[in-house]
Amino acid sequence: MSVPALIPFKPTNPKTRLSCVLDQPEREKFARLMLCDVITAVTGAGCEPVILATEPFSFEGVRVVQDPRGLNESINAYLERTSGPLLIIMADTPLVRAAAVRRLLSTPSDMAIVPGRGGGTNAIYLSCADRFRVSYYGASFQKHLAIAAECGLSCEVIDSFLIHTDIDEKEDLVELLIHGTGRSSGFLKELGFAITIEKGRVGVDRLRTDTP
Amino acid sequence: MSVPALIPFKPTNPKTRLSCVLDQPEREKFARLMLCDVITAVTGAGCEPVILATEPFSFEGVRVVQDPRGLNESINAYLERTSGPLLIIMADTPLVRAAAVRRLLSTPSDMAIVPGRGGGTNAIYLSCADRFRVSYYGASFQKHLAIAAECGLSCEVIDSFLIHTDIDEKEDLVELLIHGTGRSSGFLKELGFAITIEKGRVGVDRLRTDTP
Repeated sequence: MSVPALIPFKPTNPKTRLSCVLDQPEREKFARLMLCDVITAVTGAGCEPVILATEPFSFEGVRVVQDPRGLNESINAYLERTSGPLLIIMADTPLVRAAAVRRLLSTPSDMAIVPGRGGGTNAIYLSCADRFRVSYYGASFQKHLAIAAECGLSCEVIDSFLIHTDIDEKEDLVELLIHGTGRSSGFLKELGFAITIEKGRVGVDRLRTDTP
Repeated sequence: MSVPALIPFKPTNPKTRLSCVLDQPEREKFARLMLCDVITAVTGAGCEPVILATEPFSFEGVRVVQDPRGLNESINAYLERTSGPLLIIMADTPLVRAAAVRRLLSTPSDMAIVPGRGGGTNAIYLSCADRFRVSYYGASFQKHLAIAAECGLSCEVIDSFLIHTDIDEKEDLVELLIHGTGRSSGFLKELGFAITIEKGRVGVDRLRTDTP
């Protein structure tokens, strides 16, 4: 039986820190394409994706569980009713590929975790989901290590920049443009995003493509 | 015979983008301790560290090669006279550990590379050093992939956030405080650096410790 991969997702007005370069319809499409890249990766690793959406949402061929509560409440409710293994992975980690997911699934520990940039948590694999509870926001990586210890679970930290890199701000788009191979990076390029180099530093700019 | 690990290092007035939180003597000590953490990791992986310094420098028990030229010129001169394997790793990647270095060394490809955040290159392993040349600055990761293709070398990208994370700016110190286990993170903590959480976002602040 394949391991379920729970992917929390907010369909409406997501990624507001990208408002400086993407309007709301673009952010909604971009978020959906990042989700699509994550689904491709977890499916490639043999997982069964499950979208945990805050509001009504559908995605071709993927089961959607709707829960309007906050991230922690909705995930913890899901954990309580899941006795087997579970992967939890954030929808804004579009660099993830199947090989990186397999590194989590193959941990010899009770659980495996990939920190996000800036103290967060981007992926957690649990061999027995109902033995753990999540606490996202703030320095959640350290909180999750502490919860693992409290719960008596051994925990491996997986050293993956592909999962470590979450896309929140304009500067993060550099990583997606350089390392992305999926649909979200393709969409950025279609919109005219390209990396720039000024004084030896790499940045990102949106070249307007709507003029003849 | 152990693989040499070439570590470029600038002893005087390094890491100027950290000037907002560290004065010059502190930056010089901090850079030296990051170098120390990198040396510990490469030595742990069975490499022989070699410091490539821009000016006179000594480090207990480690060979130092002095070359006043720029990064590319000095490394490429070193590559030309090295026919065997070589690791090149940046001195500002203090999260690196022996296990991450071993992932580079064990590549089945002609070379392995770890990108730095923002398009750079933090580590390159070459099975035959004199078949490659480096081109740092700007989007060097993409340049190095192109050079590998030009030279007919197969190249594996190693998915490691511990090597991907370089310490250039104040925000990067968050990563070191959370994930660091070596001397450079210990030094930051001694200086009063600690992570802060405001509105759910993790930052870093230096608490003054010199008042009674």
